[in-house]
Amino acid sequence: MGQISREKAFRSFGGMLEVFDHESHACQCTMRFAVFTPPQAEHGAVPVLWWLSGLTCTWANAAEKSGIQRYAAEHGLMVIFPDTSPRGDGVANDEAYDLGQGAGFYINATQEPWAPHFQMEEYVVNELCSVVRDNLHMADMERQGISGHSMGGHGALTLHLKHPERYKSVSAFSPIVNPADTPWGEKCFAAYLGDDREAWKDHDTISLVKRQPTNAQLLIDVGADDEFEDPYLMSSRIIDACADAGQSLAHNVRDGYDHSYYFVSSFMGTHMAHHAAILNSK
Amino acid sequence: MGQISREKAFRSFGGMLEVFDHESHACQCTMRFAVFTPPQAEHGAVPVLWWLSGLTCTWANAAEKSGIQRYAAEHGLMVIFPDTSPRGDGVANDEAYDLGQGAGFYINATQEPWAPHFQMEEYVVNELCSVVRDNLHMADMERQGISGHSMGGHGALTLHLKHPERYKSVSAFSPIVNPADTPWGEKCFAAYLGDDREAWKDHDTISLVKRQPTNAQLLIDVGADDEFEDPYLMSSRIIDACADAGQSLAHNVRDGYDHSYYFVSSFMGTHMAHHAAILNSK
Repeated sequence: MGQISREKAFRSFGGMLEVFDHESHACQCTMRFAVFTPPQAEHGAVPVLWWLSGLTCTWANAAEKSGIQRYAAEHGLMVIFPDTSPRGDGVANDEAYDLGQGAGFYINATQEPWAPHFQMEEYVVNELCSVVRDNLHMADMERQGISGHSMGGHGALTLHLKHPERYKSVSAFSPIVNPADTPWGEKCFAAYLGDDREAWKDHDTISLVKRQPTNAQLLIDVGADDEFEDPYLMSSRIIDACADAGQSLAHNVRDGYDHSYYFVSSFMGTHMAHHAAILNSK
Repeated sequence: MGQISREKAFRSFGGMLEVFDHESHACQCTMRFAVFTPPQAEHGAVPVLWWLSGLTCTWANAAEKSGIQRYAAEHGLMVIFPDTSPRGDGVANDEAYDLGQGAGFYINATQEPWAPHFQMEEYVVNELCSVVRDNLHMADMERQGISGHSMGGHGALTLHLKHPERYKSVSAFSPIVNPADTPWGEKCFAAYLGDDREAWKDHDTISLVKRQPTNAQLLIDVGADDEFEDPYLMSSRIIDACADAGQSLAHNVRDGYDHSYYFVSSFMGTHMAHHAAILNSK
């Protein structure tokens, strides 16, 4: 338990990007994740930023395309890139890109055939957190933040709202903010959690903001030309929800940008500055 | 002739990344290329930097992974990303990754079955240059630079050495500097140019530097742990060749870095500053 094996390593922006495999108890399969360790970790513990990716992604999408390492190296943040679901021949799957492997939605499935492996909330919040603490000694687990894209934006926002003391800074690109009431979320929540729509609200940013706002500012960027905004993201619903609940929000709609990593990379610098300002001041 | 059709477009770092198809006379097939236009082009003509990619790549590798748009937007440089070869069902190919489609080597083939389509030097230097001039009116063709990675580093160095008045700034990541005497180049030069090794020297950086050094500084970065350095790149041979020929050279060997875009992206900022300093002062 807790042992990791290094599968790949790349020097990047003066730090190291490493890819590890480990046997996951929560997901009952081998899980792969990546870690970027900034050069500042040579001199002491550094804050930890969790990056949660979107549908169909692995650790690689953000590490290759988002430009995050440059800013992590500037600000001295470690970045953890979990996978987006359990994987493997023995793991349930679906032909669709938006259900099953690659579409874990950062929740714990209660329904068959998903429940035995699809425990991504438990995996990210508890198991992988312990694995990082036990194996990456320069990770300062008292200073954690969380961000992500699309389905991973949903993950970042909901995990922060559920665990505000854990994830002290939070941001999201193009997030699915209302999965309990939009197609991607409805499909996966029905499959993973069953038909009780009331239970879905425990994993829905709009519902969570209204129920349990936090003291943090939610930083959200969305492309004005995001091809998934309506009906999949409906990210503008976050504006009224935060206003009603008294949740601090910085919500930027970026002219001309779409849903891709070309958009994410363009504003990664401002998100990383947001996280660094909070995490480096603790 | 000269007409281009826009297939994709992405807003990126305040500029636009666009992907075009056009019918190539030189390559006798449909060719695809990408262009990043920086925000400064809204206010006037901007310099043009050619990015030549390596084996197996298309326009997409650098646009997605190198981080080049960020620096192009900072410095106000247009970037052109040509493909690495002609492509299509009617185009000769080979099962190997290092011959045929994806491996054009930026030379003009004289041998069958390659000669009808593999005219990449003619394509990049003349045809695509005209296409850019005719269609992208903010491209200042009096201020051009060239860079690339691996096979594209070979392309950048050789095309600069052949056309120093055209490509006023030049740099290369992990370049194949001596293709006439290393395995990748020997394989492709034999196939495309035939068995006369003397003729290969017209497309070999080491030979060209000795024969016709330029007034520009060659900026070259190589990873100290590049897995292809020996025997494929042999990039260190450039040091003595430049010293002997009086060619100005800045040659950086970067500790711990490999051949990947994790390396390229880490030093893209210094290369773009190099090009901008030359091209923006003209």
